[in-house]
Amino acid sequence: MAILVVGSVAFDAIETPSGRRDRCLGGAATYFSLAASYFTDVRVIGVVGEDFGPEEESVLTRRNIDTRGIEHVPGKSFFWSGSYMQNLNEAQTLNTELNVFQSFSPKIPDAYTDSEYLFLANIDPVLQADVRSKMPKVKMVCGDTMNYWIKDHAANLAHVLKGLDALLINDTEAKMLAQDNNLVRAARKVLEMGPKALVVKHGEYGATAFFGKHTFGDSAVVSVPFRAPALPLDEVVDPTGAGDSFAGGFFGYIASRPALTPAVFRRAMFYGGVMGSFAVERFGTERLQHLDRKEIEDRFALFRQLSHLD
Amino acid sequence: MAILVVGSVAFDAIETPSGRRDRCLGGAATYFSLAASYFTDVRVIGVVGEDFGPEEESVLTRRNIDTRGIEHVPGKSFFWSGSYMQNLNEAQTLNTELNVFQSFSPKIPDAYTDSEYLFLANIDPVLQADVRSKMPKVKMVCGDTMNYWIKDHAANLAHVLKGLDALLINDTEAKMLAQDNNLVRAARKVLEMGPKALVVKHGEYGATAFFGKHTFGDSAVVSVPFRAPALPLDEVVDPTGAGDSFAGGFFGYIASRPALTPAVFRRAMFYGGVMGSFAVERFGTERLQHLDRKEIEDRFALFRQLSHLD
Repeated sequence: MAILVVGSVAFDAIETPSGRRDRCLGGAATYFSLAASYFTDVRVIGVVGEDFGPEEESVLTRRNIDTRGIEHVPGKSFFWSGSYMQNLNEAQTLNTELNVFQSFSPKIPDAYTDSEYLFLANIDPVLQADVRSKMPKVKMVCGDTMNYWIKDHAANLAHVLKGLDALLINDTEAKMLAQDNNLVRAARKVLEMGPKALVVKHGEYGATAFFGKHTFGDSAVVSVPFRAPALPLDEVVDPTGAGDSFAGGFFGYIASRPALTPAVFRRAMFYGGVMGSFAVERFGTERLQHLDRKEIEDRFALFRQLSHLD
Repeated sequence: MAILVVGSVAFDAIETPSGRRDRCLGGAATYFSLAASYFTDVRVIGVVGEDFGPEEESVLTRRNIDTRGIEHVPGKSFFWSGSYMQNLNEAQTLNTELNVFQSFSPKIPDAYTDSEYLFLANIDPVLQADVRSKMPKVKMVCGDTMNYWIKDHAANLAHVLKGLDALLINDTEAKMLAQDNNLVRAARKVLEMGPKALVVKHGEYGATAFFGKHTFGDSAVVSVPFRAPALPLDEVVDPTGAGDSFAGGFFGYIASRPALTPAVFRRAMFYGGVMGSFAVERFGTERLQHLDRKEIEDRFALFRQLSHLD
């Protein structure tokens, strides 16, 4: 079933201990779409400038991603520049130019309105809420956010959280959102804000899903958390987009299944880790552009091998 | 089969956000022994002062731990005082008084010489090597160390590492020992120093075992790492001794099995996490003193549930 994603499509300049790139196609919606495209149909809503040409578009269309929702407007695309020279776990932002993204007003093509799954990537919660309200019939909605929206746009974010099936954020964001430095207590508080599930990404240590006291998907009440591993890697070339790639693998797998059961949720957590592990092996989306399903299944098997008793 | 452990038996004063204790029975050998005692016979070598009386001794003997190797000498026992008020993941040491530990010279009772398993807790590598040399017939040796020995006693530590089947340390220690800030590369370098396996403890994120290109135990070559979860807890009352309790559960389980297979190693990693999770639920060794095997098996089942796909 098709996933609709709304988020940034951008150019990034990145330096890491492994090297540098002055211009990578990036943005949350790009990473998410590519990762999810190995599992299901993906449709993107975003905005780009005149620097986004046929070459960039073909990165998405080669993966059968529907780009009709990417609006082209005069000006330059969103540009981000970051360094991981000091710390591979946290980017130091050198420069952010919103450019055409500053006046982004998401428009949903008619062809997208039958999408059953919706991913609200990390953008202004006002825009997340707007897209959500225009897609009343979606079956499942997942979303992301970041410190900026948590700190300075709390009321708008609270509105979005109420309508989420799953929120995917990292440890720091979860603790900041809950104002509690214990992850389990923080998760409980975040779940009280609305999401039926909270997926907390721990970077190299994997991810943990916490569940509220809701009936989740087609299944009964799930209350024990679920912890998925990450792959120990001897070189993280570029951590940019790992979280969005996790979300793409996670949600892409769920959208590919007939029903959301606890078993499907667990496997989705593994596929999230799998796609995150591919993303960081090369700069930008290089690795995500040229995978095949066998590589993905082999790595899934490796994730199982490195975490399962039998 | 019996495990012989050499290490500190101490008194601790601890403050955490959950409260404070002015005098807890502690020390690496104490935590290790109690945790391992639920799986196998345990014998301790250590030294205590006149402040260690029948009440303290009975904490160990009630768990059938053989204390004949605990030497009683005039003076005060090792005393450590620490605070976790700023950071539950890392103790701030307020005071260390070595006392009788300063002139500790391990003596091995005759009754201990048939021990098949040896754990060298975190003490001076010169003493670790001494005990190791006096137990030439042990089947398996595991050890721990810390930043102080890694930085200032490298040559002595290198000698100990050559004789270890498994080294159990945390992320920071592994990276410091290898002088590499990537965990996988660091693990490779540590394994080249001698240990057949390296178990890296990640605190609330669990632990990862890395294996060298050796035949390990009775099994064939193992090369894929193994990652075991930790239990997400809504209150860590006192993190003191979590690593030693992990080691006790890990090694105690191994010693209880007829042969060390990859499957036994994996389960041992889970039992390590299980015992660590109990240890931090109360101050000092309070929780470890009064467990039963059913509680341990129930928690093992919970660890499986929170990490396994099926």
